[in-house]
Amino acid sequence: MQQHKTTIINDPIYGFIAIPNGLIFDLIQHSYFQRLRRITQMGLSYLVYPGAHHTRFHHAVGCLHIMQKALETLQNKGVVISDAEKEATLAAILLHDIGHGPFSHAMEHSIVEGIHHELISLKFMEALNQEFNGSLTLAIEIFKGSYSRKFLNQLVSGQLDMDRTDYLKRDSFYTGMAEGNINTDRIIAMLNVHEDELVVEEKGIYTVEKFLVARRLMYWQVYLHKTSLVAEQLVTRVLKRAKELSHQGVRLPASKALDHFLTHKINATNFDTNALKTFAKLDDYDIISAMKEWCSHEDFVLRELSTAIIDRDLLKVKIKNKAFAKAKLDKHINALQDKYGLSQHEASYFVFTGTISNQAYSYTQGGINIKMANGKIVDVVKASDQLSLKSLTRAVVKNYICFPKSKG
Amino acid sequence: MQQHKTTIINDPIYGFIAIPNGLIFDLIQHSYFQRLRRITQMGLSYLVYPGAHHTRFHHAVGCLHIMQKALETLQNKGVVISDAEKEATLAAILLHDIGHGPFSHAMEHSIVEGIHHELISLKFMEALNQEFNGSLTLAIEIFKGSYSRKFLNQLVSGQLDMDRTDYLKRDSFYTGMAEGNINTDRIIAMLNVHEDELVVEEKGIYTVEKFLVARRLMYWQVYLHKTSLVAEQLVTRVLKRAKELSHQGVRLPASKALDHFLTHKINATNFDTNALKTFAKLDDYDIISAMKEWCSHEDFVLRELSTAIIDRDLLKVKIKNKAFAKAKLDKHINALQDKYGLSQHEASYFVFTGTISNQAYSYTQGGINIKMANGKIVDVVKASDQLSLKSLTRAVVKNYICFPKSKG
Amino acid sequence: MQQHKTTIINDPIYGFIAIPNGLIFDLIQHSYFQRLRRITQMGLSYLVYPGAHHTRFHHAVGCLHIMQKALETLQNKGVVISDAEKEATLAAILLHDIGHGPFSHAMEHSIVEGIHHELISLKFMEALNQEFNGSLTLAIEIFKGSYSRKFLNQLVSGQLDMDRTDYLKRDSFYTGMAEGNINTDRIIAMLNVHEDELVVEEKGIYTVEKFLVARRLMYWQVYLHKTSLVAEQLVTRVLKRAKELSHQGVRLPASKALDHFLTHKINATNFDTNALKTFAKLDDYDIISAMKEWCSHEDFVLRELSTAIIDRDLLKVKIKNKAFAKAKLDKHINALQDKYGLSQHEASYFVFTGTISNQAYSYTQGGINIKMANGKIVDVVKASDQLSLKSLTRAVVKNYICFPKSKG
Amino acid sequence: MQQHKTTIINDPIYGFIAIPNGLIFDLIQHSYFQRLRRITQMGLSYLVYPGAHHTRFHHAVGCLHIMQKALETLQNKGVVISDAEKEATLAAILLHDIGHGPFSHAMEHSIVEGIHHELISLKFMEALNQEFNGSLTLAIEIFKGSYSRKFLNQLVSGQLDMDRTDYLKRDSFYTGMAEGNINTDRIIAMLNVHEDELVVEEKGIYTVEKFLVARRLMYWQVYLHKTSLVAEQLVTRVLKRAKELSHQGVRLPASKALDHFLTHKINATNFDTNALKTFAKLDDYDIISAMKEWCSHEDFVLRELSTAIIDRDLLKVKIKNKAFAKAKLDKHINALQDKYGLSQHEASYFVFTGTISNQAYSYTQGGINIKMANGKIVDVVKASDQLSLKSLTRAVVKNYICFPKSKG
Repeated sequence: MQQHKTTIINDPIYGFIAIPNGLIFDLIQHSYFQRLRRITQMGLSYLVYPGAHHTRFHHAVGCLHIMQKALETLQNKGVVISDAEKEATLAAILLHDIGHGPFSHAMEHSIVEGIHHELISLKFMEALNQEFNGSLTLAIEIFKGSYSRKFLNQLVSGQLDMDRTDYLKRDSFYTGMAEGNINTDRIIAMLNVHEDELVVEEKGIYTVEKFLVARRLMYWQVYLHKTSLVAEQLVTRVLKRAKELSHQGVRLPASKALDHFLTHKINATNFDTNALKTFAKLDDYDIISAMKEWCSHEDFVLRELSTAIIDRDLLKVKIKNKAFAKAKLDKHINALQDKYGLSQHEASYFVFTGTISNQAYSYTQGGINIKMANGKIVDVVKASDQLSLKSLTRAVVKNYICFPKSKG
Repeated sequence: MQQHKTTIINDPIYGFIAIPNGLIFDLIQHSYFQRLRRITQMGLSYLVYPGAHHTRFHHAVGCLHIMQKALETLQNKGVVISDAEKEATLAAILLHDIGHGPFSHAMEHSIVEGIHHELISLKFMEALNQEFNGSLTLAIEIFKGSYSRKFLNQLVSGQLDMDRTDYLKRDSFYTGMAEGNINTDRIIAMLNVHEDELVVEEKGIYTVEKFLVARRLMYWQVYLHKTSLVAEQLVTRVLKRAKELSHQGVRLPASKALDHFLTHKINATNFDTNALKTFAKLDDYDIISAMKEWCSHEDFVLRELSTAIIDRDLLKVKIKNKAFAKAKLDKHINALQDKYGLSQHEASYFVFTGTISNQAYSYTQGGINIKMANGKIVDVVKASDQLSLKSLTRAVVKNYICFPKSKG
Repeated sequence: MQQHKTTIINDPIYGFIAIPNGLIFDLIQHSYFQRLRRITQMGLSYLVYPGAHHTRFHHAVGCLHIMQKALETLQNKGVVISDAEKEATLAAILLHDIGHGPFSHAMEHSIVEGIHHELISLKFMEALNQEFNGSLTLAIEIFKGSYSRKFLNQLVSGQLDMDRTDYLKRDSFYTGMAEGNINTDRIIAMLNVHEDELVVEEKGIYTVEKFLVARRLMYWQVYLHKTSLVAEQLVTRVLKRAKELSHQGVRLPASKALDHFLTHKINATNFDTNALKTFAKLDDYDIISAMKEWCSHEDFVLRELSTAIIDRDLLKVKIKNKAFAKAKLDKHINALQDKYGLSQHEASYFVFTGTISNQAYSYTQGGINIKMANGKIVDVVKASDQLSLKSLTRAVVKNYICFPKSKG
Repeated sequence: MQQHKTTIINDPIYGFIAIPNGLIFDLIQHSYFQRLRRITQMGLSYLVYPGAHHTRFHHAVGCLHIMQKALETLQNKGVVISDAEKEATLAAILLHDIGHGPFSHAMEHSIVEGIHHELISLKFMEALNQEFNGSLTLAIEIFKGSYSRKFLNQLVSGQLDMDRTDYLKRDSFYTGMAEGNINTDRIIAMLNVHEDELVVEEKGIYTVEKFLVARRLMYWQVYLHKTSLVAEQLVTRVLKRAKELSHQGVRLPASKALDHFLTHKINATNFDTNALKTFAKLDDYDIISAMKEWCSHEDFVLRELSTAIIDRDLLKVKIKNKAFAKAKLDKHINALQDKYGLSQHEASYFVFTGTISNQAYSYTQGGINIKMANGKIVDVVKASDQLSLKSLTRAVVKNYICFPKSKG
């Protein structure tokens, strides 16, 4: 009468999440993973959606939960999955985002320029694999997509993977944007495997369609919300300015870890074990705390950008389909230079244009295959009866301009 | 310090529904309206979705609730709505479905052939208007669309009206088909009025898109679910057979009200006050009870069709895009004739083909107008950035065939 | 690569319910079980809570679902449960209410006087056991409590069984009385077995307390709601009157099955196979349909009681702690006799008193045992830190009087 | 046709929250209020409940929302409330928690010893009142309870106030501890005013009982959860140690604001305007960031306590009804001294005992008055039919001991 010990985690979304003792439990306990408790899933989106303070830790644990469900569902449908494959796939999804830094997209465009978080996730996994004596070798293969059974990788990272399935549901839940809610139970119930590739059963077509439309809606109404957009741009710019000043020799208040990344030029080629260890100490608290101190710094750009974020007194932003004329940009820049005696370079920290885009469905990312009742495998766009999905394959691009509010 | 008396109704969906004393309260108390407690909103769909036992009474009260919210929202946005208009619009939405009979679509194809439920709703309203001394005159105008301020009618009956808004949410809730859930609060928050026509504000485009996709999904996965389809066809056929037998002089067990409709030929031209009074006594209980008795009737067709419904031992149904060959139909009919010694006419009660179709969005029903940020009014299909809605304007048609399961 | 076939049922509460193929599936398909689709779980409570149209079918399937969860949870904790025990326990909970008739409590006090629904459930199970060649023998033992492993019976029928766990959650959900909601997942997670008896782990004390308080609240606010109470009393009385008239030789409109019970005196001793077969045809539709016809019957009592229910124009009801004086009762009866020329016997159908009571927690029903962290087994009332539970062991009794509204 | 401008905030709990333009809007925009975005409502409880990252900002806005509902409900019941009273009550509830610092309870026992957060809230309100030219004078009166109409204060701060109503619901929601959920709509619907005091209508007795039981459950299962308890104790101790070291002249890495409170002795008498301005810069980020730096500090106590929190590698904790023997405490302290060569004072940072207690209902806090159907005002404990509430008036006290886990 052996007792299976499991730790239970309360989740507002799934109710209870069971963590089996063993490798998975030990990974969660590791300080590299605990760090994710201090990194919000949605960056500064809480400035728009005050409920959106959920963390990458919570998302990763949520992914773990639905991956367990997905693997059990496939097993119940007769797909053979070994215990080793199961544990490795659970480890892979648990760690898939471990390389995220604070305000990830902002960082990738500032202090760790050009290093994608997936590369860092891989480096973390390799470091953990050493520490755990090779127990993560199969997980890494699955994560990288080099393992023979493709569906395991597709569950971790595909157009209908457990990552997206959890984050759409979770972000919808915490933002209160109920329209983005998706039915994870049904999505999982519709999955199957055909020749070691992930497929969706025909009766799941509407569920997939709903998933894609929900995702598109979340992009335009939440992830690309103009206030989130401007907040993320401001963080990018404040970090760029801080790095610029640091390289000019100005010593800024910052945690040891942040200081390292401000004063060194870290890129994909010199991101070594030491960089990883320092990166493992970076989280939202380093960035926000630094900005709080910078609110009283003498540099105009650093101070004003930091204050804008901390006091939530952001730039104005306009969005339209066509590109903004350079003249419009210049007008705002000149006005700002005149008002505060700034150089054009300094003023351009507050006035800028850019584009946002989203493609709801992409063949090139592998597509979503439907297993028709007659056994044929068809791309979901072809399987859908109305071609309504076809239109989702085109990327939508919009332009924005940001500039300071005119105050009294 | 006058106290406004209101009756509070508990609703699993909206929480509390407040019923103001006065006309609306009296209408709800009327036996014509109480009858709706005995008519399920979704016919026999509970044979597929066992939670779907909600009634037309509950739907009508739900519509009343969100109509109150919608009118208040518009008033808060500066739209002038008089107390008389408000009460009339509430009465119109409350009574919009009062003409539904039990298993409405089945009845319209059998015992009250060719009479649409909207016509009967109107007759009920006129009868009530007499009883209530003309208090419903404006409500009837709004219901018919003859009142000058179009948006009031559009809230009752349009492509984005409070009827659809409630039934999609309610049917999704009670079936457990969470994917059909829509955000009524957000839909209502996006409404506005432009030149007395209902419009949706630009930022509500994704909400509209989500609404249309949810509706499409509910059609194909719920309303046109193959088991619901076959159940509805069976009810239609059992009533046709009963009428056929009655007109041949066979006296069937039936309630007085049902007997009247079985033994008389009621159509749109002879549906008089007497017919209305008898119709007002018909509900699900008459039909189901009759079928229960007919399970032991000597007529093979009547008995077997009734038993199929009562014991939920339905016909087999297949659905495909192309029409079924007549040869296939004939094969099943012949087999049935041979097995039970039936005439071709009798056998055709159990073997038949047909089509189901749905058009998610239709210009001809008035469309949904978007008020752009720049003030222009644009149809939602044009306003949407991806033309993904355009594909929803095409009707999708599918073919089905029903025939008996082959048993032991 | 064998595929486990399961049927999936959508449930608004639990999401998906999986029905394993085999005995359980066949039982659900049986017409005896399908009958439960036509019996509402809460009788006429929908006259107060318009969402409460859920059926005994749905409740039974819900019980099946959480019993599966409970048994799996216990197995995961190391409790050995054989496949045969599992199937039998699932069958027992599935069928535990199969003996309910329409408006069960009303019937037990009128047309099948003195026969408790549990006895009829047992008779149904025995009939099904014959039909299924003895496959239900163990299920029946568990249901009766004669099987050696008590906890299986306690899960079916105890103070914290899966029956109560489902109906509290389900009734709370459908009435919209959110305060009665309980956390089934947590309750199940806290269960364990000690010497073949069901226990709750110590950390589950607050969960049990919450369960008992929720149950008490549901009793007083929902099950014993004064409008539900009067509606149930009216159904009891209309059936009593119908039986009285039938035994006087009056032939009333009624279905064959109902007619049998009106014209025969069925009690616990003569409830034979034939009675069971007839009983298996009785459901809400027989009773409601009959009352609809009786609304135009010449007998004053039968007609007025039926109309009161059908048009929801009920008696007035008052509730207080002390008993009502006989003088008060007589006053109302006399007034009614005078007004309509009724005999005292007839008038007493409309004027009556009675008591309602509820005991939230009862030792005599077996109690709820807590397994303390130190291994000791203690009754929950003793284990609770505040004795707040002790007060729940006292029965609360209230008195009511019903009489006609005085109309214009 | 004047348009009322309102800002809409998405809330996962209430859907939409409308913020009227004007004073309330301006208060929310103020940096003092925006600071609350960086203070979690539940301190380090997210180490147990990973969803519990919601902030005091969100709670305050939630309180605002239900206060609007409560005031409207009372007005609909005929209670006269002036526009000025309404705005002031909304401002009072919005700002009631503005004085909370990060990890409030921990701070009150360490760096701002002996200053209760309500006092600081009052100081903030007075500062804002100056800035807003006296617009908060009435709000402050209501907050302090000095305004003549008591019910306005009781809605802000009483046994059944909007503060508790929101935080119980919100904390239950974000922790996923569904059993603590309460029905805010129903609570509000049951409120009324009698002689300017807040009362609950008789039919709301069960709702109040449910509220009190839910609150008790949340205390024992969430707020006093042993892991939350030990985490809070660790933060208190790490701040005490930091202050101790600072006063010994050790200069610790810390933000300017935190440094101020570590190096100065701030108490209730010297908490002046300057202290307030510095306090207004303190939030969770200062504390967590400092602890992250302290993880590599040379002081054993500071380093190990900080690491325990940051890596979530906490002390062991035991809870029981009786006090722990001093011998037990000493044993752990001695073992620790021996192992790491610590002084007794240092070791006592890691080994300590204490008590936790909760009283679910207290007369001395004002009680909850029930307005009986007969007009009498009765305390809820007397009004309840079972005296089950009486037991909730007794305080429950438990003892705990914390000590290091024994490692490898």
